[in-house]
Amino acid sequence: MSLALWRSPLARALHRNRSLAFARYLQLATVRATGRPANRTVVFRGFLPDTNQLKFITDIRSQKAEEINLYPWGEICWYFPQTREQFRIAGQLILVGADYPEAQLCSSRRTAWQELSEAARSQFAWPHPGDDKAPAGAFDSAAPDPIEPLPNFCLLLLEPETVDLLELRGEPQNRSLYRRDAEGNWSVRSVNP
Amino acid sequence: MSLALWRSPLARALHRNRSLAFARYLQLATVRATGRPANRTVVFRGFLPDTNQLKFITDIRSQKAEEINLYPWGEICWYFPQTREQFRIAGQLILVGADYPEAQLCSSRRTAWQELSEAARSQFAWPHPGDDKAPAGAFDSAAPDPIEPLPNFCLLLLEPETVDLLELRGEPQNRSLYRRDAEGNWSVRSVNP
Repeated sequence: MSLALWRSPLARALHRNRSLAFARYLQLATVRATGRPANRTVVFRGFLPDTNQLKFITDIRSQKAEEINLYPWGEICWYFPQTREQFRIAGQLILVGADYPEAQLCSSRRTAWQELSEAARSQFAWPHPGDDKAPAGAFDSAAPDPIEPLPNFCLLLLEPETVDLLELRGEPQNRSLYRRDAEGNWSVRSVNP
Repeated sequence: MSLALWRSPLARALHRNRSLAFARYLQLATVRATGRPANRTVVFRGFLPDTNQLKFITDIRSQKAEEINLYPWGEICWYFPQTREQFRIAGQLILVGADYPEAQLCSSRRTAWQELSEAARSQFAWPHPGDDKAPAGAFDSAAPDPIEPLPNFCLLLLEPETVDLLELRGEPQNRSLYRRDAEGNWSVRSVNP
């Protein structure tokens, strides 16, 4: 596989914004069972090796996972404050849970778990998200196994189909639309902001 | 009308993050005609006086305006880096264009136009957003009238129905769900993060 055309401006943005820890935070929109939009912050965990797929993690008990099971499509909006660039990346979402049928992605899921901090792993042992707040003691369980993921831990992948890059610094601003065709090749054109 | 329960934590977050200009940037998710989610950064322009409605602006020629005309529902995700708080606010979207049938909102639309910088107003005279990039000269039109909005200028309002506040700094994190009932009264409960 070859790197998509938008990988190089995205790598540059990540590099130029690296002093801001939250430059790896972005917003993922999905569609609820009701047909209404949902939107929340997620943390970018790098690319799945040898692909253009962005990695995230989630809990199978979260609303996000439910929504993705029903309708596996998402659009992320990623704003880089230092360079004033916005990447809107839309594509299919792939939720890799404990019983995912493909060995290689199961192994990527295990790797993602092992790369987490102990504090991040512990959150998967917390009481059910969205339920009435449990007493503080319910959040004090022992640190989970650092090798074998808890069953509710999911790797979440975004396979991009379109990327809309807006550079606010231009005068006028620059906007580029990247699109993947049926053969998987990317093209780009400049459009009005 | 009385201030909704979530207005005070939001005002506090805005105050504590006031040193960051981009703390007024947030991400608005809507649903496309295809049923897929869309997501982009918008700038918070304050509250409509005597309401709990958040103000934004947009161009009637943008995809966002098209989507809202088809399905006037949105969810914003607003992350405050300094205080590590996330507000997810969902509700109805109201697009106030040149021919909006209500005099008071037409007047709010004019006020929103007058409050913009000249540079921001000029963007509404730019060539059609999303079309193939026009030559640089096409972006050089004279400054628009500062009093009477261009016809494509829209005020965009979000009338919140639910607010999901996550405070990442807690141990465990604190999460509060605010909900508006049919009478317009707000209630809140603490849930697991």
